[in-house]
Formats: sequence, C-alpha cells, structure tokens
Amino acid sequence: MAKRLMFEKPLGMRDTLPFFYNQKSKAREQLKSSILSYGFSFMDTPFLEYHETVGKVSATKEQRLFKLLDQQGHTLVLRPDMTAPIARVAASQLKDAEYPLRLAYDGPVFRAQQAEGGKPAQFEQVGTELIGDHSSHGDAEVIALLVESLKRSGLTDFVITIGHIGYVKAFFKDLLGNDESTKELLLEHLYRKNYVGYREEVKAQTLTDDKKNALLALLDLRGGEEVFAKSKSLARNQVCMQAVNELKQLYKLLSNYGVESHVKFDFNLISHMNYYTGILFEGYAPNLGALLCNGGRYDTLLPSFKLNASATGFAIHLERLVEAINDEENGETRLGVIVDDDTHIKGVQKAKELRQQGYPVLLQHVDQIPDIQEFKNQLKEHIDFTAKGGLNDE
Amino acid sequence: MAKRLMFEKPLGMRDTLPFFYNQKSKAREQLKSSILSYGFSFMDTPFLEYHETVGKVSATKEQRLFKLLDQQGHTLVLRPDMTAPIARVAASQLKDAEYPLRLAYDGPVFRAQQAEGGKPAQFEQVGTELIGDHSSHGDAEVIALLVESLKRSGLTDFVITIGHIGYVKAFFKDLLGNDESTKELLLEHLYRKNYVGYREEVKAQTLTDDKKNALLALLDLRGGEEVFAKSKSLARNQVCMQAVNELKQLYKLLSNYGVESHVKFDFNLISHMNYYTGILFEGYAPNLGALLCNGGRYDTLLPSFKLNASATGFAIHLERLVEAINDEENGETRLGVIVDDDTHIKGVQKAKELRQQGYPVLLQHVDQIPDIQEFKNQLKEHIDFTAKGGLNDE
Repeated sequence: MAKRLMFEKPLGMRDTLPFFYNQKSKAREQLKSSILSYGFSFMDTPFLEYHETVGKVSATKEQRLFKLLDQQGHTLVLRPDMTAPIARVAASQLKDAEYPLRLAYDGPVFRAQQAEGGKPAQFEQVGTELIGDHSSHGDAEVIALLVESLKRSGLTDFVITIGHIGYVKAFFKDLLGNDESTKELLLEHLYRKNYVGYREEVKAQTLTDDKKNALLALLDLRGGEEVFAKSKSLARNQVCMQAVNELKQLYKLLSNYGVESHVKFDFNLISHMNYYTGILFEGYAPNLGALLCNGGRYDTLLPSFKLNASATGFAIHLERLVEAINDEENGETRLGVIVDDDTHIKGVQKAKELRQQGYPVLLQHVDQIPDIQEFKNQLKEHIDFTAKGGLNDE
Repeated sequence: MAKRLMFEKPLGMRDTLPFFYNQKSKAREQLKSSILSYGFSFMDTPFLEYHETVGKVSATKEQRLFKLLDQQGHTLVLRPDMTAPIARVAASQLKDAEYPLRLAYDGPVFRAQQAEGGKPAQFEQVGTELIGDHSSHGDAEVIALLVESLKRSGLTDFVITIGHIGYVKAFFKDLLGNDESTKELLLEHLYRKNYVGYREEVKAQTLTDDKKNALLALLDLRGGEEVFAKSKSLARNQVCMQAVNELKQLYKLLSNYGVESHVKFDFNLISHMNYYTGILFEGYAPNLGALLCNGGRYDTLLPSFKLNASATGFAIHLERLVEAINDEENGETRLGVIVDDDTHIKGVQKAKELRQQGYPVLLQHVDQIPDIQEFKNQLKEHIDFTAKGGLNDE
C-alpha cells in the first residue's frame, strides 16, 4: 500500500468516532420519534440511482454529483438528496397509497467537493415529504413538526425563516418585465444573501427611481407578522397578494400549533433547491454558521415523474444539528468485569446480571489487558474476579 | 426523461418501503442494544474510500467493487465491507485507545452485481470488531454476543457453524506438500460447499489410498464436540492439534455463556473473506437459503495498516435476518384526527394529547382527503371534528 494514502480518506469524507456517533444517534432518535408521532412512515431508497432518473431531477449542479459507470454503461449517481428518489417511489410503487401521503427518510446524501478543508461530501439528512396536501395546512404541519422535532432533539435556540418564491418572482416580473438576465442576477444575490451585491446591481440598472426604490425596499421585508402589510403595499399585483395571504394563513395555523415564536418571515428568501414553487423555509441556530435545515413546497418535481401532486417537506442536516446542540454530557457508563481462567463462568453470570439491569458491561480476561490500571480508568466501575484483583480490591 | 428508465433503479439496487423499513428498524435496534450491552462502541466510516487504502485490502474481487474517479484523479470505491475501514481507523485515529478495543458498526456495504434478478448490490451489515484480544476468550465473547443478538432480534432457530482455517491448511500441507494448485482447487470446492466436486478432485489425484481416504475423511468432521477426537486422530501434526485444542477451549467458554446449543463445528468451513487466519464461523437459519452472518479471527489485516494486533468479529446481514425472522405482525397503530377550518385548533390540541400518550397521529384537513372512507380505513381509529363528520360519527 502506498504509504502516502494509507490512512487517508477522499476529499470531504470523514470518520464518525464513537463520541460523535452516540451524539448523532441520540439526536436522530428524537427526531425520528417526533416524525413518527405525526403518523409519517419512514422508508429508504438505494444509494445509487440512474443519472437519467434521479440525478437530472435533483437540481444538484453536475460538478457536485458523484458519478460512475455501471457495467451496462449507464451513468449512476450517488444520491445527492432524498426528495427526488422519494418522488420516484411515490410516483411508482406507492402511487395507489392513501392520500395525503406522509413519508419520511433518514440517511446520507452526497455532494462532491472541489477543495480541501471545506464542507463534507457526505452528510446525513432526516426529513419528511407530505404529498398530496395542497393547502396551507400541509405547510403548517411540516413546519410545526420541524419545530417540535428540533426542540425534542435538545435544541432550544433556533429560528425558522419562511419566504415565498412566488412573491419574489412576481415582484421582479412586475418591475423588470422580461429582463431575465437581471432577474437571475438579483435572484442569485438573494440566494447568496449578498445584499450589498443586490443593492449595487439595482443601482446600476437603468430604471425609474420608483422602481429602484421598490427593488431596494424588498430587502426590508423581514420580521414578524408586521411585514405582511408592508409586503402587500409594496407589490400590489394579484400573485404577490395571494402569496402574502398564504403566509398570513400559515402564520395563523402555526399559532394554533403554538410554534409561532420560532418563526420569522423573509420575502427575500431564495432556496438553493430550485424546485421549490411556493412557500419555502430555512432554519438557523445562532451558534451555527451554516444552514441547519430547510424545506418548502414543490409542485413540479412529482409531475416530472408523471404524478400530478404537490408536496411539501423539510430536511434536517443531522451533523449540523448535533453541532448546534453541543451536548457535552456523555459520561462513561460502562462497567468492567475482569476474570481469569478460573473465574470466567462467575464473570459471565455477573456480566449477564448487570446487562439485564441495563448496564453496558465489558467482560475481559485479565491476560489480554496490556495495562490494567488504564483499562480500569476507562470504566465507570469495575469488578475484579481475578485472584490478584480480589486481594487488591476487596 | 427517457421513459424507459423513469422508474428504474440500477442493477441490484432496491427501495425499502415502510413495512420492510419498520421490520429492519426493529431488528436493528435489538441487535444494537445487545452489542451495546457488551460494552462495544459504535462508529461509522465514510461510504467512499480510496481504492488504494481500503479497496485493495478488503478482499473483495475487483469486478465486485463500485469504482469511480474523483476530481483529483484518484480511484475511489464504495465500501465493500466495514472491517477494512474500521481497521484503518483503529490503526490511525484510535491507535492510542485502551486495549482490548471493542468497536461496532451498522450500515450499508456495496458489491456490484453482474446479472439481473440476482443478489442485492447494497446490503446492510451490523457487526463488531474486538481488537487486541488474542485469546479464545475473545472468540467466545463475539460468538456469544452474536447468538444473544440474534435471539434478541426474535430469531429462534439458527446454528452457528465454527471452523478453523489453520486446521484445513495444515492438513492439506501434510497430505499435499507444496502442490499449491491442488490445495487451491480443494479449498475452492470447500468454499463453494461443492462436496461432490471435492470428492471427484481427490479421487483424480495421484496419491496413496491412505492420503485419499484422509482427504475424504475431512468431510465427515462436522457435528458437536464429538468431532474433536476424530479431528485429532485424522491430523496428527502440531498445527492441527493446536487448532482442535483452541476449538475445545472455545466450546468450554461458549458453554459458560450457555450458548452451546446454537453451535456446531465444521472442519471443512472456508469463509469467502480470505483474511481470516484462525477460528471462523458462519450462521444459518433453516428457512433462509443464504448466509445469515459470519465472522472470525484475522491477524494480517491490521498489520497491513501497520497495527500489530489480532482481531475477531462478526457481521450480520440485516435484510436476511429480517427475512429469517419473518415477523408478520405489524398492525396499524396510527390514529386520525380530521379537521376543517373551524376545528383546526381543537384538532391540534387533541393530536398533541394523543401523541403524548404515545400514539402516532395523522392530523388532516378534510378538504385535502380525496376519499374520506379509504382515508379512515387505513387508520386504527379516527376522530372526525368536521361538522359533517360530527353528524355521521357521534
């Protein structure tokens, strides 16, 4: 084996050592138990999909896809998200299921990285898809579930920011007509949350001052329910009005759920997943410099699999959630039972008793322990059944 | 999207629908809880590894590896097993951990398939590695843990067959000297459990009748502890004697654990993983036409990562375990709360109450239900808070 690579991992690939593994398990279990309590059914899809089927639909940039050729010459991709594969299953094997359909998933997804030291190329998503509920009730349900799941996982301080892609697009169309390239530039700035770039772009345009001011005023449409009135007065077209009404209705329903304190609105919000078509949202925790979770409503993905349904869902980035929870308490709970040849059977009995009481127990023959003191130090408590141990410890 | 591929998955790739997902979850939780009770620590490694690092060591045939090129031009593989990646971690990040080291894992591994309708190309393994315990106590611990895990998962009828690769190899060396090609042919027949082929191969050799009879007598070395005496008298060389003594000692320790009724011995056993070096074992359930689990001791894998330690472990094929358990009871437990605009808040309260009592609850606005009767039929019970429902149901 080439010495250089012996212990190396591919770019963006990471090991999950026991401490972090346990923290992830704890958070995952809490999230899954919340999601199950809402009647969602978990399912899974394979890690490899045809590029033709899922890769193209997933809205992940080509250079971010891990691609390989199978032995039949098809291009395969490592799944870059779970929404597209679940859409595939909903449109085929589950097309006769009762609607609305509540599906959930938990597993790794893959995005190739270009540079060393950057983001992980594999990360775990826990998420939901509510398919066939076209109403604000569906949006409210998934956002309420998202809030409850995050709280149950142990996260206290977080905000879900909600926007509406329909509002932004209709607003731009009103002011910029068919100038697609400017619209795209502005959307890109919003997506990158580059508000300085957005302002400069607006100022550089040959537009009336009224229009420029309106485009700049969009950036102020952030906050609590008080932004609804401002949003209506800024964009008086039919589509924008309806988008604001949808968000108002959503806010009312979220108040019914009692989760409104975790929610803010942001009419500048553009998600990186370009298949969202209505309400969309992102979740942030203040101590985390990255997106914690996101989601929204999409109406065009399922039809691309010939299923005429609208869907709404969220995905939580599990590793980031664990970072945000930052749960330090992970005290050693293992007990040790140390035996020799004569006391093995006695040790087996004792270990069995303790395991039945719920303790994790290491049963260990003394001859295989290189450093007895260090071995004992790693444990919460130990029982030494060896002749020597018996003399020392009892 | 090309219509032909729209709903297709790559060769050997399968979706896991909710029913099977739940069965897998149940079995996985039981296995993991047994493994944790023995003081093992779970960890995970990335799905992609360098071919140079893990692909070559894993003893998986080249054509069974899923390979891809990364953007730096390295060949990557989708991990074909977990033992090699865990060896990599044990030899690097965990090289200063307390020994013996008890590690466990749970996750998918990948083996490319050549033909349609065959085996899955992705399957889940739950397993353990006990590193640095060079004694029969280590072997006994992992086999006892394997038996207890399988029992706790709900499997009642199964056998763990134990062999010793050292015995077979020394026995062949005694009788066939340096005739490597014949030895390899015979090992291959044993590996394929092709005993007819083995007999024919033996008969075709130009050997004394005594030697031929000895080679044929190997096939009879299967059963309970009574085979130890026969095994000793058949192969009187030092290495074989020691191998039998190891198995005798192992049997005694397994009796201490009280798991001896699930154990048989088979001196013909050859595992497909060619890194095993001592005791090895395979588990079968009578209603399953395939290997359920396997494991053994390996002494050369860790040194290939410059870690001078012996290890022993097992891997359970989770999907096959679920098949073998064949647990049909998976009754519907979901409750439904059906609301309209006026009763949403009342429904939210009711759903919350029921969820706190541990029920999974679907809270659903009536306008989004395409077929109310079928919607109700899928549930265990429902409460209808709509005006119309109230008239019909209460």
